[in-house]
Amino acid sequence: MKRIFTLGADFGSTSCRTIAVDVRDGSIISTVDVPYEHGVLTENLPSGAALPGKRTALQVPNDYVEALTAGIHSILNETDITKENIIGIGIDFTASTILPVGKNFQPLCELEKFKDHPHAYVKLWKHHDAERFAVRMNDLAQGEEWIKRYGGKVSAEWMLPKVSEIAEEAPEVFKETVIFMEASDWIVAQLTGELVRNSCAAGYKGCWHKREGYLSNEWLKELHPLLDGIYESRLRGEVSPVGIKAGTLRVEMAHSFGLQEGIDVSVGMIDAHAALPGLGVKGPGEMVVVMGTSSCHLILDEHERKVPGISGVVEDGIIPGFFAYEAGQAAVGDLFAWFVKEQVPPSVHEAAQHQGLSIHEYLSKEALKLEPGQSGLLALDWIHGSRTPWVNMSLSGAIIGMKLSTTPAEIYRAYLESTAFGTRVIVELFEDNQVHVKRLITSGGIPQKNPLLMQIYADILQKEIIVDTCENASALGVAILSAATAGADKGGYDDVSEAISRMSSRKQKIYYPNEKYKEVYDELFHSYKELSDYFADKSSVMSGLTELKNRFEGGN
Amino acid sequence: MKRIFTLGADFGSTSCRTIAVDVRDGSIISTVDVPYEHGVLTENLPSGAALPGKRTALQVPNDYVEALTAGIHSILNETDITKENIIGIGIDFTASTILPVGKNFQPLCELEKFKDHPHAYVKLWKHHDAERFAVRMNDLAQGEEWIKRYGGKVSAEWMLPKVSEIAEEAPEVFKETVIFMEASDWIVAQLTGELVRNSCAAGYKGCWHKREGYLSNEWLKELHPLLDGIYESRLRGEVSPVGIKAGTLRVEMAHSFGLQEGIDVSVGMIDAHAALPGLGVKGPGEMVVVMGTSSCHLILDEHERKVPGISGVVEDGIIPGFFAYEAGQAAVGDLFAWFVKEQVPPSVHEAAQHQGLSIHEYLSKEALKLEPGQSGLLALDWIHGSRTPWVNMSLSGAIIGMKLSTTPAEIYRAYLESTAFGTRVIVELFEDNQVHVKRLITSGGIPQKNPLLMQIYADILQKEIIVDTCENASALGVAILSAATAGADKGGYDDVSEAISRMSSRKQKIYYPNEKYKEVYDELFHSYKELSDYFADKSSVMSGLTELKNRFEGGN
Repeated sequence: MKRIFTLGADFGSTSCRTIAVDVRDGSIISTVDVPYEHGVLTENLPSGAALPGKRTALQVPNDYVEALTAGIHSILNETDITKENIIGIGIDFTASTILPVGKNFQPLCELEKFKDHPHAYVKLWKHHDAERFAVRMNDLAQGEEWIKRYGGKVSAEWMLPKVSEIAEEAPEVFKETVIFMEASDWIVAQLTGELVRNSCAAGYKGCWHKREGYLSNEWLKELHPLLDGIYESRLRGEVSPVGIKAGTLRVEMAHSFGLQEGIDVSVGMIDAHAALPGLGVKGPGEMVVVMGTSSCHLILDEHERKVPGISGVVEDGIIPGFFAYEAGQAAVGDLFAWFVKEQVPPSVHEAAQHQGLSIHEYLSKEALKLEPGQSGLLALDWIHGSRTPWVNMSLSGAIIGMKLSTTPAEIYRAYLESTAFGTRVIVELFEDNQVHVKRLITSGGIPQKNPLLMQIYADILQKEIIVDTCENASALGVAILSAATAGADKGGYDDVSEAISRMSSRKQKIYYPNEKYKEVYDELFHSYKELSDYFADKSSVMSGLTELKNRFEGGN
Repeated sequence: MKRIFTLGADFGSTSCRTIAVDVRDGSIISTVDVPYEHGVLTENLPSGAALPGKRTALQVPNDYVEALTAGIHSILNETDITKENIIGIGIDFTASTILPVGKNFQPLCELEKFKDHPHAYVKLWKHHDAERFAVRMNDLAQGEEWIKRYGGKVSAEWMLPKVSEIAEEAPEVFKETVIFMEASDWIVAQLTGELVRNSCAAGYKGCWHKREGYLSNEWLKELHPLLDGIYESRLRGEVSPVGIKAGTLRVEMAHSFGLQEGIDVSVGMIDAHAALPGLGVKGPGEMVVVMGTSSCHLILDEHERKVPGISGVVEDGIIPGFFAYEAGQAAVGDLFAWFVKEQVPPSVHEAAQHQGLSIHEYLSKEALKLEPGQSGLLALDWIHGSRTPWVNMSLSGAIIGMKLSTTPAEIYRAYLESTAFGTRVIVELFEDNQVHVKRLITSGGIPQKNPLLMQIYADILQKEIIVDTCENASALGVAILSAATAGADKGGYDDVSEAISRMSSRKQKIYYPNEKYKEVYDELFHSYKELSDYFADKSSVMSGLTELKNRFEGGN
C-alpha cells in the first residue's frame, strides 16, 4: 500500500518548522527547523538603516520562503518520502504579522525605493510601536457591540493598529500598497497565486465577523482618514474558513520546492490555534491551553456567546462549523523565569547543582513536599498584566503571606499555583457563560517539563489535565487539515473530524485531580478571587502604582 | 581636677556590656563585653537535662554576676580608672526576663533539688512557651480598662504569662518560690541586698500602673488559682521610679568587684528604654527608634493618653516625671535579612563581590538610583506580624506591583520603604492622640550601616532623622542616670535633666527630608494605609492564610 503524506509548515517568530506526516496514522516522519536568515529586526534593517522605534520588530518576507524551501528540500533529501506521495500542504503563522504588498503580492520592501523604509517590511506580531493606535481604537470603540467579541479591547498587535501606524507614519508606503496581508495569507498567495484571507487571523486579529463582516467605514475614517474604504481596497479579499483549500501549488513554486505542481494548499491559520486539531480536539468540551511564556486558552462551542474579558470568538476560526473561543494569561513561563532569574538565592543554586538538577527541577522537588495551603502564601499571576478576565495591562504581580521562615520553594509553588488559579478563573468564566469545559489539554514546553505544575492544575481545577508531548502540535494540526482538504480520493479524508480522529497526537499523559485537595484549594481560590476583585476592580492602589511607574518611563 | 566615673552595665540576650563613663562630659572610657558562660539554653540545661518546650529560652542567673564581675575587673585592670573615682553603677536588662528566687534572693535553680528543673531557671524575654497564658489573659481582659494602656494586648514575653506557666507546669517550683523577680531587679538585689522593683519593667511588662496599681485579685485568680494574692506574696515589693537610688553596694559585692563599698546603685530598667537618656532625650517631642531585628519606638509626654495599638505607657518609666510611651514594629532588620538570604540571586552576589561591597551595600547603591515611586512596588512590613498599630501576629508580609522587569534592588528598596511607612503609621498614631513627635533619633546597628534607609525615613516621614552612632546608648543611659542618682555632692548631678545635657551622646548625624519627595511619598503612604486597612481589617484573606498555615504546624 502506498503511503501518503501531507506537509505542515509552522512559521514561528524566528524559524519555520516543516514536518511531513503520514496520513494513515498521523505519525510525524520528519521535522526540519530552519531559522530565518535575518531573524527579528529590532535595531537595523538588512541595509544597515537604523530603526527608530523602541518596540520595533520587523522581518524580511523572503526569509519565510527560503526557510520553507530549505525545509521541504531537507525532508525530500533525507527521508524516503517522494514528491509523488505528498498530496497537500498546510500553513500556520504567528499573528497578526502583516506586510504591505504591491502587484503580484510583491512585498514593498523588495522595491529598491523602499529598501531602507521600515514601514515597507513585515511587522511581526510583537512589534509594539502601534500602541497609540490601539488606544485610539479602544477609545473609539467604547460601547460598541463588536468590541465585546474581543473582551472589550483591541491589542496593538492586531492588523488595524499596524495599518494605521503605516498610514500615519509612512503615507508614501501606504499609498503604494496594493494590499495589506497577514503573513499566513501571503505565504499561501506565494504558493497558490490566490488572495485568500483566513478566517482565523481575520477573525481574531482583523476585526472580521462571519455574519456582521468588518467594521463600518465611518468608524474607520475616524480612526484614520486614509482608512476610508480600506475594506474595498487595501484590505479587500474574501475570508475563507480554515480547513478548506485555498488553491493549488503553482508550477514555479513546485519546481522550487521539488514538489508536484497542483497539490492542494489549505487556507492558513494562526500558529497557536492550529494546535487544536493537532491535539485531537474536534468539538466542544476540551480546552487547549498552549503554555509558553504566556498561556493561550482555546475552546470550541456550537454557539456564539459574548464572554467578557476573552481575547476573541470566531466562527469557523479553528474547526469549520464551530465557534472558536480564545482567552489568555499574559505571563506563565515568563513569571516562573522571572522568579528563577531574579529571586532565587545562591543556596538554592548550590543545592540544585549538588543534586544535578536544574533550578526548576530542584524547586519543584522541594515544592512537592508542601501540602496545599502549607506555605501560607497566595500570589497573583499578573506580572505582565491580566489578559483574561480583566484585559488590563496596568495590573501587576502580587504575593502575600510571607513570614520570616518563608523559603524560595514556597514562593515558587505559590507562583505555580497563581497561574493555575488564573486558569481556573478563565474556565469558570466560560462555564458561567454556558461554554462547557470538561477537561484541559496542555501543550507547549512547560507542561512536559514541570509535572508538579500539571498536578497543581489538576488539583486546583479539579479536572483532568492532559499533557500532550507532541512538540509540533501546530504543524501537525495544519497537516491534518491538509489531509481533510485533499479529500479521500487523493488519499486523504473527506471529513475534518475523521482526519483529526486518525491523525492527531496520542502522546498523552493524564493528570487526575486529588479530591482530598479540593476543599483547601477551593478556599485558596476564593481568596485569589477576592484579591483579584480588590486589586483589579475595587481599589486603585495597584493601577496607581503602575501610573506612578509610567511617569518615569515616558510614553510607552 | 579629679575625674569622676559611673559604670553602666547593659545585660543583653547573650552578654553583659559594661562601660565606664566620665561624668564631666559623658565620654565612654572603656567598654567590655563579656558573654554569658551558658548563653541561651534552648535544648538542654547545664546538667544535661533535656528541655521539652519548642520555644524554650532559659538562662543561668550566676552567669550575669560573673559577666558583670569580669567586666568591672577588666575596666579596673586596663584603664587608669581607680575604684575611688567610681561613684555609682546603673543596670539595664532585657525584659521580661524573670526568675524564681528563695530566701536571700537565691535563685531556685541553684538548689540541688531543682538543678534539673527547667522552671527553676531564668526565663529569658524570648522564651515563648507561655503563649497560651497570654492568650488566656487577653481573653479575660477583653473590655477592661487596664489593657488599653498596652494597646489591647498582653504578650507571652511578659511577667504574668511566665509566672502562670510555672504555676501550671511546676507547682512545686511555684510553691518554693519566695518571690518572682525581673532579672534587672535581681541584679540590683545582688548588689544592694534590697528588693526594689523598677517602674520600667513593672510598668511595661508587669501590668503595674503608678496610680491604679496592679490587677485585681479576682482577675488573677481567674487567670490561675495559684495566683491568688500573689501581689502580696511572690510579686510583692515596692515599685520605684527609674533614675533614683535602689541602695548601696554591699561589702561582699564591693570586694568581689574590686569597687568601693557603699557606692550608689540605681534602680534598674529595660535595655531599650535606657537608650533615651543615653541619646539625650529629656522630655517630649523626640522619638527614639531603636532599630535592630525589630524596631522599638519610645517617646515621652507630660500626659497619659490611651493610644490604641501601642505596646505600653508607663509613668516614670524612663525619665522621672514623664509618661513614657512604647510602640513597635515586629520586623525591620529581620525583614531585610530575610530578603537578602532568601531572595537575592547569584548575579547580585557576583556584582557585589566584584565591587567589593556587601549585599546590603550593593543593593542600597542600586536602590539609590531609583526615584520614589519609580519601581511601581509597594510592600507591607508585616513579615513577623504587626505590633503597632494592629497588635496582630497573624498578619504577614506582602508586596505588589511586580513587572517582568522588576529587579532585586527595586524590591529591596520597596522593603526599606515599607518599614518607613510602618514607622510613619506609628508617628501619626501618636500625633493623632496628642503625643507630639518633632523628630526621630535612631539607634541600633542598622541606621549606621544604611544611609539610604535613613534618607528614606526622612523623606517618607518628612521629619529630621538623627542617627546616633553611640554603640552603647543603653549602658550610657544608665551611667547617666547613675550620675544623677549620686548627686552633685559626690561629683554627679542633682538633676536628671542636667546629667543628660552634660553626658549624653553627641555622635550624631542628621538626615533632612527632601521636600520634593513629599508628594509622591504621601501618595504611596496613602496606598500603604489602604492596603493595611484592607488586609488587617476589612478582608480576612491574610489572616485566613495564616490560619491555614497554622493547621500544618500544630499548636504553637
